[in-house]
Amino acid sequence: MEQHSNNTMHNYKFEVPEIIFGRGMLSQVGSCARRLGGKKIFLVSDKGLFRAGWVDQAMRSLLEAGLEFVYYDNITPNPKDYEVELGVQEYLRQGADVIVGLGGGSSMDAAKAIAILASNGGRILDFEGPDRIVRPLPPLVLCPTTCGTGSDVSQFAIINDSQRRCKITIMSRCVAPDISLTDPDTLATLPEEFVGTTATDALSHALEAFFSVASTTLTDVHAIKALRLLTKSLAAAVHERKPEDLENLARASLHAGMAFSNSLLGIVHALAHPIGGLYDANHGSINAILLPEVIRYDIPVVTEKLQELAWGFGHRSNNDIIAAGDKIQETLDSLLEASGAPRSLRSIGVLRKDLPELARRALKDVCIVTAPREADEDDLLRILERSY
Amino acid sequence: MEQHSNNTMHNYKFEVPEIIFGRGMLSQVGSCARRLGGKKIFLVSDKGLFRAGWVDQAMRSLLEAGLEFVYYDNITPNPKDYEVELGVQEYLRQGADVIVGLGGGSSMDAAKAIAILASNGGRILDFEGPDRIVRPLPPLVLCPTTCGTGSDVSQFAIINDSQRRCKITIMSRCVAPDISLTDPDTLATLPEEFVGTTATDALSHALEAFFSVASTTLTDVHAIKALRLLTKSLAAAVHERKPEDLENLARASLHAGMAFSNSLLGIVHALAHPIGGLYDANHGSINAILLPEVIRYDIPVVTEKLQELAWGFGHRSNNDIIAAGDKIQETLDSLLEASGAPRSLRSIGVLRKDLPELARRALKDVCIVTAPREADEDDLLRILERSY
Repeated sequence: MEQHSNNTMHNYKFEVPEIIFGRGMLSQVGSCARRLGGKKIFLVSDKGLFRAGWVDQAMRSLLEAGLEFVYYDNITPNPKDYEVELGVQEYLRQGADVIVGLGGGSSMDAAKAIAILASNGGRILDFEGPDRIVRPLPPLVLCPTTCGTGSDVSQFAIINDSQRRCKITIMSRCVAPDISLTDPDTLATLPEEFVGTTATDALSHALEAFFSVASTTLTDVHAIKALRLLTKSLAAAVHERKPEDLENLARASLHAGMAFSNSLLGIVHALAHPIGGLYDANHGSINAILLPEVIRYDIPVVTEKLQELAWGFGHRSNNDIIAAGDKIQETLDSLLEASGAPRSLRSIGVLRKDLPELARRALKDVCIVTAPREADEDDLLRILERSY
Repeated sequence: MEQHSNNTMHNYKFEVPEIIFGRGMLSQVGSCARRLGGKKIFLVSDKGLFRAGWVDQAMRSLLEAGLEFVYYDNITPNPKDYEVELGVQEYLRQGADVIVGLGGGSSMDAAKAIAILASNGGRILDFEGPDRIVRPLPPLVLCPTTCGTGSDVSQFAIINDSQRRCKITIMSRCVAPDISLTDPDTLATLPEEFVGTTATDALSHALEAFFSVASTTLTDVHAIKALRLLTKSLAAAVHERKPEDLENLARASLHAGMAFSNSLLGIVHALAHPIGGLYDANHGSINAILLPEVIRYDIPVVTEKLQELAWGFGHRSNNDIIAAGDKIQETLDSLLEASGAPRSLRSIGVLRKDLPELARRALKDVCIVTAPREADEDDLLRILERSY
């Protein structure tokens, strides 16, 4: 059995943006944008948040801070290359400065991509991979309104290549925003299915970050905290939607984001990117489907970390590694069940004939590099088939 | 019994600099300084590190990065106002740009103070308290070489007012460096007594951060990790000095620094600052002396957090809060004993007649604000007498 490493890294870097968190804090977005030198703000959000009144709150905060703004919402889920290229034309035409992204991963990744093009020019697909960005980005404030993604703290932007129908990953320290601002009140209007599926995205961030060969004690503490919060509040947040449980999910997303932005991810995300690219499917749902089989695949090479993980899932350690592994898989399963997320690739429309191509594409995804256990095309195909 | 709050804060900010950690990483200080735009580096360190060869290593790294440098070591422990004012004259006279602080809290706080004056002018004592700094500081890289302080990630600089013989606290987000770079190899040459006393500084940072009324889940995870690492490695690091134990202490210091920089501290530090100012005594030793009595004073108002803390100290929870409190005090005591730090104020030369004045001064220290349990002059005096 090949494994990359089952140890926590000893030499490492750790970076997170300034973080602001709390109920009602969306009212601070104006003062944040002003503090970053903004005069005319480019506000990227979506129609659902507009209808729910949150865009209006953000606009009011910008106006109260004495700022002008341009509103842009021409973005779809799994944002496409041409959408962000239209976005940057509008940004430049309007002479905007600070960019505010308010929404889920799609709005925030679009805001990041617009920021990249605003100062670097060119086509967004030219920036695929690590460290392709040359010029500093305009100041960026990101305000997440789902229970997953972590884009608000991460050094990644994921954009859909509309021609190849695949997702590209842009990875650079300068893609992390200046300020991550979470107002958990915004979760009150998030449709039920997105509470569950974005929380399973946070769950997969935490688990993959914890097992990553680039994990460190600085990332592990956040991964474990995310798991503890998800174990405590996921089911209740989905079914009862109490503000304190939704707030715990927002907090879990933040912790998980701080972990994976610095330790990177693994096979779940390496497979989820080509699937999301090919089928334009919900990212959290894909992760939820793949997680059990990938964790089953990883567990034999991460035995040293299983007791801490079992503790994160609320089990008291008894020094029995096999029991810890079993409990982890049981808890994971019950969390996924409670989330209401789909449980098979078939159920979200993936075609069986595409599985070999998806496995091939996953091998080239940057996320595969930090997976704890090496995987070839056959290994990946087996995981896909078991998840089908 | 008055208490400030025994809850973790719900609205909060969290900020840490870019962190680089690992054995041998001091060789990267040149590329860090160059990345921050440096051409002529102002290197602040001390004679002990020079003799141990670490300053030489830093200089070599700067030269290899094609940078000039000016070396400055005219700093004493508990750095004095006039020392940093002489330092900034040299910085300006030489036309230096990026500042690198290599050493313990004294060198790093001096580097911060020099950076403040370099761009803001004036006298260092004018910057006492929160948010008095107007202009951005020159880029700053801080490299800790002890097991405590946390200055390399914190938003504080502590300087000694030589006339009033008291310590002032400068507090501002811009006092945090651009890069915190820890090379645990530097601990190999740290004299034994400083291993123990700087580790007890980290211990008090973690405990006070965890009990602070401004603690959050983002700070708690780092405080608990620091305690777990100290519990595991403090005694062994002091007595056997194995590299892996020293590395764990460096890691603990970093985690504790990330916690307290964002949650602030409490009564231990509120009392330690006037004592350090009046007697020019070792900061870690003072903390070690005060910790048991302050924790005893705090415990009744932080019962909700005792089980997590007991877990941090390596005890398995059994839902009994009184037992958890007892175990915490026992473990704390054995850690302090193992550290070799002094255990009474008398033993470090504090005069009994000064205790009332020290209690009065502590009431004005900024650290008292976030203590979990309120304390008046009599309460503080009682803690001092019990620690005498």
